[in-house]
Parts: sequence; C-alpha cells; structure tokens
Amino acid sequence: MVLSFLSNSTSMQRTYIKDLGSKIGSETLICGWVSVRRDQGKMVFFDIRDGSGSVQCIVLPDSQAILVAKEISTESAVSIEGIVNKRPEKNIQAEKANGDLELQIVKIEVLNMAQTLPFELESELNLDTLLDHRPLTLRNERSRNIFRLQATIAEAYRNSLQKQGFVEFQAPAIVGGDAEGGAAAFKVNYYYDQTAYLATSPQFYKEIMVNAFERSFTFAKIFRAEKHATPRHLSELTQMDFEMGFIKDHRDVMKILHDVIVDVVKEVAERHADILKYFSAEIPQAPEEFPTFTLAEAQEIISKEFNRTIEDTSDMSPEDERQICEWAKKKYGSDFVFITDYPVEKRAFYTYQNRSFDLIFRGLEINSGSQRIHDYNEMIEKMKSRGLDPEKFSYYLQAHKYGFPPHGGSSTGLERITMKMLNLENIREATAFPRDMNRIDTRLSE
Amino acid sequence: MVLSFLSNSTSMQRTYIKDLGSKIGSETLICGWVSVRRDQGKMVFFDIRDGSGSVQCIVLPDSQAILVAKEISTESAVSIEGIVNKRPEKNIQAEKANGDLELQIVKIEVLNMAQTLPFELESELNLDTLLDHRPLTLRNERSRNIFRLQATIAEAYRNSLQKQGFVEFQAPAIVGGDAEGGAAAFKVNYYYDQTAYLATSPQFYKEIMVNAFERSFTFAKIFRAEKHATPRHLSELTQMDFEMGFIKDHRDVMKILHDVIVDVVKEVAERHADILKYFSAEIPQAPEEFPTFTLAEAQEIISKEFNRTIEDTSDMSPEDERQICEWAKKKYGSDFVFITDYPVEKRAFYTYQNRSFDLIFRGLEINSGSQRIHDYNEMIEKMKSRGLDPEKFSYYLQAHKYGFPPHGGSSTGLERITMKMLNLENIREATAFPRDMNRIDTRLSE
Repeated sequence: MVLSFLSNSTSMQRTYIKDLGSKIGSETLICGWVSVRRDQGKMVFFDIRDGSGSVQCIVLPDSQAILVAKEISTESAVSIEGIVNKRPEKNIQAEKANGDLELQIVKIEVLNMAQTLPFELESELNLDTLLDHRPLTLRNERSRNIFRLQATIAEAYRNSLQKQGFVEFQAPAIVGGDAEGGAAAFKVNYYYDQTAYLATSPQFYKEIMVNAFERSFTFAKIFRAEKHATPRHLSELTQMDFEMGFIKDHRDVMKILHDVIVDVVKEVAERHADILKYFSAEIPQAPEEFPTFTLAEAQEIISKEFNRTIEDTSDMSPEDERQICEWAKKKYGSDFVFITDYPVEKRAFYTYQNRSFDLIFRGLEINSGSQRIHDYNEMIEKMKSRGLDPEKFSYYLQAHKYGFPPHGGSSTGLERITMKMLNLENIREATAFPRDMNRIDTRLSE
Repeated sequence: MVLSFLSNSTSMQRTYIKDLGSKIGSETLICGWVSVRRDQGKMVFFDIRDGSGSVQCIVLPDSQAILVAKEISTESAVSIEGIVNKRPEKNIQAEKANGDLELQIVKIEVLNMAQTLPFELESELNLDTLLDHRPLTLRNERSRNIFRLQATIAEAYRNSLQKQGFVEFQAPAIVGGDAEGGAAAFKVNYYYDQTAYLATSPQFYKEIMVNAFERSFTFAKIFRAEKHATPRHLSELTQMDFEMGFIKDHRDVMKILHDVIVDVVKEVAERHADILKYFSAEIPQAPEEFPTFTLAEAQEIISKEFNRTIEDTSDMSPEDERQICEWAKKKYGSDFVFITDYPVEKRAFYTYQNRSFDLIFRGLEINSGSQRIHDYNEMIEKMKSRGLDPEKFSYYLQAHKYGFPPHGGSSTGLERITMKMLNLENIREATAFPRDMNRIDTRLSE
C-alpha cells in the first residue's frame, strides 16, 4: 500500500470536488475523506468528500488502485487521481451536486488511514455519544450542516450591522466584578491571588463604545455559572451584541434588530436551502414588521387563546413563549415576536423604565434589549435603590458623567438562533464545544 | 435651558453629519457631542461630531440658542437644529470633510450635560491616565482612529479568509487543561470545585474543525498568565486563527497568510489614508512575495549587516526581529518577513519537524504558524518525548485516530498587527480594555 506524503507523490494541481463538473474527460487530482466505501468484489465504489463537496468514485477491476481500494477504511484521508466521466443517463442523480459525473480512479494514495470507527458516523447518536466524540462526530453531515449554517448566521449578522454603520470592537472576557449584579459568575485566579471574574455580559463595554463610535457591536464570549441543566442553557455562550446612541427610545433598537434578523434570514435562505431541507426546517417567516405586544397584552392573548390561567405575570414562562409564538405565527405569519414592557425590577439595573424588550423566535427568547439609563444622577439613584455601591462602578460611570447620549442595544445568542433556525431540541447540538455543569469536552467527574 | 428628551422635542428626521453636504440651504437636525466650543462673546462656535463625522456650527448673536450655547460644556450630548450654509470662499478648508459648509444653529437641546472633564480630551496623555479614564478617552480622535482601524483589520482579515473558503467557528474559552503544555494558564473555579483553565490557544479546536470543513477559522480570546510587563504582552488577547487540511507543507499556510495580509493592507490603505496620516504611519509595504529566511539565514544576515554576535541561535530576540525587518525593508521593500525552521524543540509539541514559521511585521512577531503532526502514532511518540501523557489528550487525539489529513495553520494577534500598523509604542494603546498584571479596567492593588 502506498502511504506516501502528498507533496512527494504528484505534481498535479488539486481540483476541489465542487469544480469537477468543469473537468469532464480530464485526468484530475482530488483530496478528501472516504465517506463511503462499497466493495462490490470486482469493483469498489467510494463517496469522497472534501471541504467543497462530494463525488462518487469508481475503481475498475483492472485498475492498479484496486488492491489499495480494498484496504482503505472509512474516514481515511486520501489523495486520488482519476478521469472525470459523465455518468450514463440512467445513473444521473439530477438533484445532487456532481450527480451527473463520477471519477474513475487511476491511483489512490492514503494520506492517513483511519482506525475503525467506534460507531457508524451517519447513524443517529444520543447527545452524550455525540459530544464525547465531537472530534469525530463534527464530520458527519448533520454537524457540518449545523455549523456551516451557524457561520452564515454570524457573518450575515455582522455584515448587516456593518452596513448599518456599526463599528466592531473587542470586549474583554476577564472582568473585575460581576457587571449585571445578579448573574452567577465564574471566578478566575488572577495575579497576586486576586479574584477576577468571567464576563456575564459585554454590557458596560459596549455602552462605553457608544461614546466613541455612536454605533458599536461585539461578538463576545459570555459565561454563566448558574446551575442550569436545561436544553436551552450553556455555561459559555457567544453573544452578538450591539449598542447605539442618540435613540428616541427602545423602538429604535428594535428597528435595527428587526433589519438584522431579516438580513440573516435572507442570507440563510439564499445559501442554505439544502441545509434547511435536511432538517425539515422551513425558512423562518420574518415579515416587514414583527408582531409586538407588551407583556400584559401577550399574557392576555395566551390566557384567552389557550384557555389558561397565567401564574406569573412578571415574566414570560417557557410555555408562554411557545404559545405566543404559535398564535402569532398563525395570525401574523411571523416566526418572530417582540415582547415589551417587562417590569423594570425584573431587568438589569441599567434598564430604562418601560423600555425593555425580548425577541422570541419559534417559542424561545433569542434576544434581550432595552434603552439604558444615560443620566448620571438617575443611574446613581438606580444603583442605590438596587443595593449596589456606585463606588464599585466608578469606571463605568465615567461614561455617564461626560455627556452619555440616550442609548440602547440588544444581544442575540448565536447558539439559540442556530438551534431554532434548524428546530434542534438541545442547544448543545448548536454548540461545537459546549460547556455546562457536566462537561468540558469530556464529562466531568463529580 | 432646555433639557428635554430627544423624542419629545422634534419630529424632524435626523441627518448624519457626513451627509450635510447634500442639505445646503435646508433646515436640518443633527445629534452629536460637543468636541469644541469657542465662545467669542457675541457669537459661539461649535465643532459637533457624531458617529459619522464632524461639522462646524455657529450661533449668531440674535439666535434664541445663544443662552444655551453659552452654558454647554465640552463633550455634552446635544441635538441641534439649524440651516446648512456654504462657507464664504475664504473660510473653506478644502481638505476637511464638511470644510466647505457650516451649520447655523437655530435651536439646541442638551440631551446630557457633561461634567467638567478631568483633562483636555485631545491632549497628550500618559498611558495610565489614558487607561484609567478609558470610558472618556476612547472618545478622543487618537483612540477612535486606532479602534476604527482595528475594526477594519478584523473585518478584512475575516473577509479574506471567507473568500478563500474558510468557515468560521466558535472556539471555547474555558478548557479542561492547558493545551500548549507550557504557557501559564489562568485557573477558573468551575462547578463542583473543579479547576478549569482559560484557553491559551484555540489550537486543538481549530485542528479538529479541519476534519469538518477542511478550512476553518476563529477569532478567539486567549489568556496568558505569564508575568510579562513588556510593551508587547497582554494577559488577554484576540487571536485571528485559521487552520487548513490537505496541505503539502507549511508553505501552503504561508501562502494563504500572505494573501490575507495583502488583503488587509489593501483595505486599510483604501479606507483609512486619513488615519495612517494622523499617526504619520506609511501604508505597509506588502509585496507579492514576503522575504523568507530560515532562522539560521536570518541570524547570519543580522550578524553580518549589523556587525553583531548572535547570543541565542535557537530563537529570534526582539533585537533580531527589528534588525531583520530593517534590512529586509531596505533590500526587498517589504514590511513583512517570514522566518522559518525554528528548532522544533522550541515550538509547541504538535509542530511538524522543520515546518514552522513566524511572520514579523516592522520588527515584531505578529503571527506564528506551522504544519502540525497528523499521524496518530507519531503524535503519541512526540507527546511521550515531551513528557506529556497521551491519556490526558484522548479527546484531541480522536482527530488523529480517524484519518486526519496533513494540515497546518497560523494565528495573528489583532492587537499586535494594529499596534505596528500605526507605529504605536505600547500594545495597550491598541487594546480597548487591556488586561495585564497590573490592570483590569482600573489598577489592581497589590
């Protein structure tokens, strides 16, 4: 068996699999992984995939490559030379990329032979198996689809903000104290045995950036030490945060967010119809205006439409979120619903009275936002009323001291929007390397 | 004095300051901060800036706004109505944006009055003052220029990778162990009193992603607990990391990196000629090929050209890096130099023998890369030879078990490339919220 290194073996230029259609009749070099090997005795068939696509290959009985072909294991990395042939009419799979051609293999080199897989890569896997073997399972079609789509969401979100004049900045992950004054924060052993924390939000920093750029955004890692073990909570998250100055009220923020979401949905629909189909997910309906209700209105609708008594009128329960979305989808043809006017005591201390909102997508809150308090004295009062010591926030309060304009912003969870876009049941599936109470890559021993 | 809220005061649509040129003769509403106020007794002049630009405004003696104008402090947030006038020919400043017009103020509303500034915002500030007052000093022209340019670097870097087929993913910040097996890592108190660490590199994760997408990248926060207090080290950094499969050797990685750098320089030059000029910085020279030397060659050149004995031949010293760049700039007209073939024992354990490189930009290493070991058995041997326990790397090693192709990648420090692009003397100036031994926002007490 030839087990040589790529550079020594050939001088032919590699062709990406997606480009094979332009090489009909030519001898071509491809590289990739063995997705499937079908040994039919005299002949061997392969599905080979690279970063760009997949193609069927055939090794004929008289080929020099037949002996190697019979030895290669699934998922091995290979380099293949062959002739690109049109398939016979009856074998054409018109709906598939490269469905009209196949590569007749002349030579195979194994770049790295895979050991026997612990399970069928494309089989249905339970969540722990999926995550225990992430370095392997990220290769399966389902995972590749999830994270390719996630990359597009991130890119489109950023592009939309940039188009709307937002300037990116880098928010810190290590902070001196817990910004939100509520969320559980992980402690970090900093220099000189001092305790630092992992940021629970880039909130203060993005507000500060308003005074530099007026409109600013950051993609920030945030960390929550809460002991949640639900299908929608993680201990490390990617938040897409923006903040803007000189707003009239929170509705200016909602308008920007709406436009970003519409741009994201458009981009996903254009690029990933195949991925949505794979998950039997519909293109999200994102109309020109998202239905918007106050918390009280929403709960009144739910109560009436679903004939149910609302227990907690100070916040939306997960059931409330699902039902308002179900109803709004039918009534307004929207997968997105804005809920406004949460009681201010339920929101972070910097929230401006009566100017908060959440965006709910297919029954799950994916974004939270508000206008913030910009007046220095009002902020001091607010901190005191919440039992916070303004002295501890003196760094942040510099923003308020020197002409902080009325401003607001919001934060979308990248994992949550990915999850709902594909109707995944657990947010861990939408996270390449999820961290939670029980896992950092491998399961934690208790 | 009118101290009303924006929404109550007017129904006029706001115009961004950059668009005032199209409003000559019209009554217009702008919002922004007071950069400068010049009280000339009967008249008051302002420079007002918003996120888009700056404009000179004038309050005439008979204006209703004159009393308010005389009260407003520098950096206050204001909303202004006025008439856009062409300036008299003699007052035109052709080289300045809006240098041909001024806004004759009819009405001013103070949205938030700034307290007296602790120092002149545009004065030269020492580093500690700059950082102690970051929420204020981020507003000055110098800081805004630095971070606007940094946003462009990040955007252009990402766009170039996406154009070249790289798929973005989110690397985790919390890790179970120290990936590099060398760098000092911060400890995190995780659940159940277990110790986790802050990532010193997204290395393992980006390698794993090669098996999913072949080409992948991430912008990752990394954390170094080393006790460095130099002008080029931070404890929290933003790294622009990419990794690619099916390479011949490290030169494939260098080729991609070269193209990314060229794209970044081009974008910076096109968008930010004014910012480069502000810092008296030239557009970096990034020729079609970057001069490339082995470590031994580079040190021989330095020794000869600068008539100096090299003490340490196992690595480039900061002086070596400066001198090879100085020489290469003269000789090859390049601000970028590749150094290859560092002794493998000086590099991380996953480095493939003789296939490492650094990219030096204007005398500072901004990027480090290599081909990695992809063969399972070779990797096990390498770990053992370094005294590392392969058992502890079992998660990562799944990638090697199942057909890991030859691959490599590199990592560019966003703060370092920003710093050298503008010839800044300290990396903290190129970091919005720097963390180091002595500072998390405010100075740490020892």
